[in-house]
Amino acid sequence: MLSEDEARQLYRESIHIDSLNISNWGPEIFQAWRKGGITAVSCTCGLWEDFKGTIANIVQWKKWYEEYSDLIMEITSIEDVYTAKKLNKTGVILNFQNTSGIEDQLDYLRVFRDLNVRQMQLTYNTQNYSGAGYTELRDSGLTGFGRQVVDHMADLGIVCDLSHVGPQTTKDTIEYARKPPCFSHVLPSGMKESGRNKSDEEIQALGAKGGMVAASNFGPHMKMGNDSKIDDYVEVLEYLIDLVGEDLVGIGSDASEGHARPSPFLEWCNRDKGYARKMTEWGSAPVVKPLGNLADREDLAVAMARRGWTAERMRKVLGLNWLNYYKRIWEN
Amino acid sequence: MLSEDEARQLYRESIHIDSLNISNWGPEIFQAWRKGGITAVSCTCGLWEDFKGTIANIVQWKKWYEEYSDLIMEITSIEDVYTAKKLNKTGVILNFQNTSGIEDQLDYLRVFRDLNVRQMQLTYNTQNYSGAGYTELRDSGLTGFGRQVVDHMADLGIVCDLSHVGPQTTKDTIEYARKPPCFSHVLPSGMKESGRNKSDEEIQALGAKGGMVAASNFGPHMKMGNDSKIDDYVEVLEYLIDLVGEDLVGIGSDASEGHARPSPFLEWCNRDKGYARKMTEWGSAPVVKPLGNLADREDLAVAMARRGWTAERMRKVLGLNWLNYYKRIWEN
Repeated sequence: MLSEDEARQLYRESIHIDSLNISNWGPEIFQAWRKGGITAVSCTCGLWEDFKGTIANIVQWKKWYEEYSDLIMEITSIEDVYTAKKLNKTGVILNFQNTSGIEDQLDYLRVFRDLNVRQMQLTYNTQNYSGAGYTELRDSGLTGFGRQVVDHMADLGIVCDLSHVGPQTTKDTIEYARKPPCFSHVLPSGMKESGRNKSDEEIQALGAKGGMVAASNFGPHMKMGNDSKIDDYVEVLEYLIDLVGEDLVGIGSDASEGHARPSPFLEWCNRDKGYARKMTEWGSAPVVKPLGNLADREDLAVAMARRGWTAERMRKVLGLNWLNYYKRIWEN
Repeated sequence: MLSEDEARQLYRESIHIDSLNISNWGPEIFQAWRKGGITAVSCTCGLWEDFKGTIANIVQWKKWYEEYSDLIMEITSIEDVYTAKKLNKTGVILNFQNTSGIEDQLDYLRVFRDLNVRQMQLTYNTQNYSGAGYTELRDSGLTGFGRQVVDHMADLGIVCDLSHVGPQTTKDTIEYARKPPCFSHVLPSGMKESGRNKSDEEIQALGAKGGMVAASNFGPHMKMGNDSKIDDYVEVLEYLIDLVGEDLVGIGSDASEGHARPSPFLEWCNRDKGYARKMTEWGSAPVVKPLGNLADREDLAVAMARRGWTAERMRKVLGLNWLNYYKRIWEN
């Protein structure tokens, strides 16, 4: 069993990838990532936005890459992740949590891929052209257009994310997709029943296809609710490993650090299209994040060691699994 | 029983409304409407277009209203329909066959209503934010966003059309809507099985709510297929009257006069979003329209008389039913 010091040492030498971040971007967050030793982080640059709104978010990132080049760098390839580690920077992988940014244009997928959006969730909570989110009244499953989106994403080397996607759309997409989709930030409903959580069957179906599942960090949807601690988070990782093995599990914190709760931003997230009907209570309800602050991410390795994890399992779950998966999806 | 001369005389004195036209607009069509004695016609100004594309189509109509003011006029109220009749012009009621023009913005419904789009089909053939079309892989039903669209349409006095809409979305919308929706251009599957046709149950459910059903004019979906004649079209009207009574049945020709088949336009209609996968074969397959040319619309009244229709029934189905229905929807 690794000691705390050994765990910290291992963490500092490891590649750590966080597959979902929606923090209040800016220098404070970039510094927190550095302090937390995060090698690469997937940041949401499209949630409810249309094409132009998404482009504006991406342009902001390109400016940040220049302005804060001492802290962050753009990830355009697997090689860049190693470079970020070597240079002691945090690599940014842009993601969408909704395909609203492509509007109804399949060709926009290529535009966004070329702008280095390498991970896209099919839909966020509600229905869009491609499929249904988990709060939708009825789940359409993957639509005919959605099939074309999934095909194009595979061709272009874009990760297909099914985290907030409804059960039928999730099932259809896992079955239909030529390349394995992922759950970039989910929790298992086998540990706590919730519409947002994924069932054992869904997780196993994804794993059978070779898809990654990363645990999010949302107290209310964990077994102990808002009393959950970092060890409970590691228990979630163990539950996922029992379902799909230790090569397909990762960390997807869903950190929203720097956003007050309630805040106009979280209110926007939690209304359909950002302004219409309210979908969930999480814009204002209390939410404990047991993984702690971004700057303290190293504590996760200590908790893994405390629960008797091997060094190999720690390295895989902290980052190598995501790296291997990205390699399979990004590189055609 | 009315003689042919009496039927022609009745037609010329009657208000005749055609609830769906997607012809190759321009002076030839406007002259054909005049020759055909059509009082008002609902014209599609949005099918796959986004907000800006739809606005461009509407601007073209505003220019046509000015340039061809001897033939056509804009309909902004029930009163305008009577004015068109009196002035021997054809009134134009703009419609959408898809809510793609509002994109994800409920407020755009007000913009389009103020531009005099007074009839909107929730979706055209496939899935959109509001619901599913009849060719979609799985029918989502009316979505949560769709409910808000339907509520806003009722508030704004916009007719909600369910013609190309899938069965579950049709059922949900009829049940949910505060104001009765319509089928602006359909045929009954009780006479010919087809995914595009509406079942007796759907037609009766619509009628029970006070919604209008108008017969379209599409040989392949009629009992006699492309051998259908104008009397077969009148038989369809009788079938609908048997289901919902003679106060809720009208004419919705779905005339696409002036467009070649095949043509780039019909190819665009028959691909998802106008360019993606092909949905139906009708872009190039032979299609007989038993109602005949727009300029010969008077023949419909002769066929009605030939089948023994009373003058009252003729007047209602030719136009008064639509007029009464529009009054109920448009005027809050």
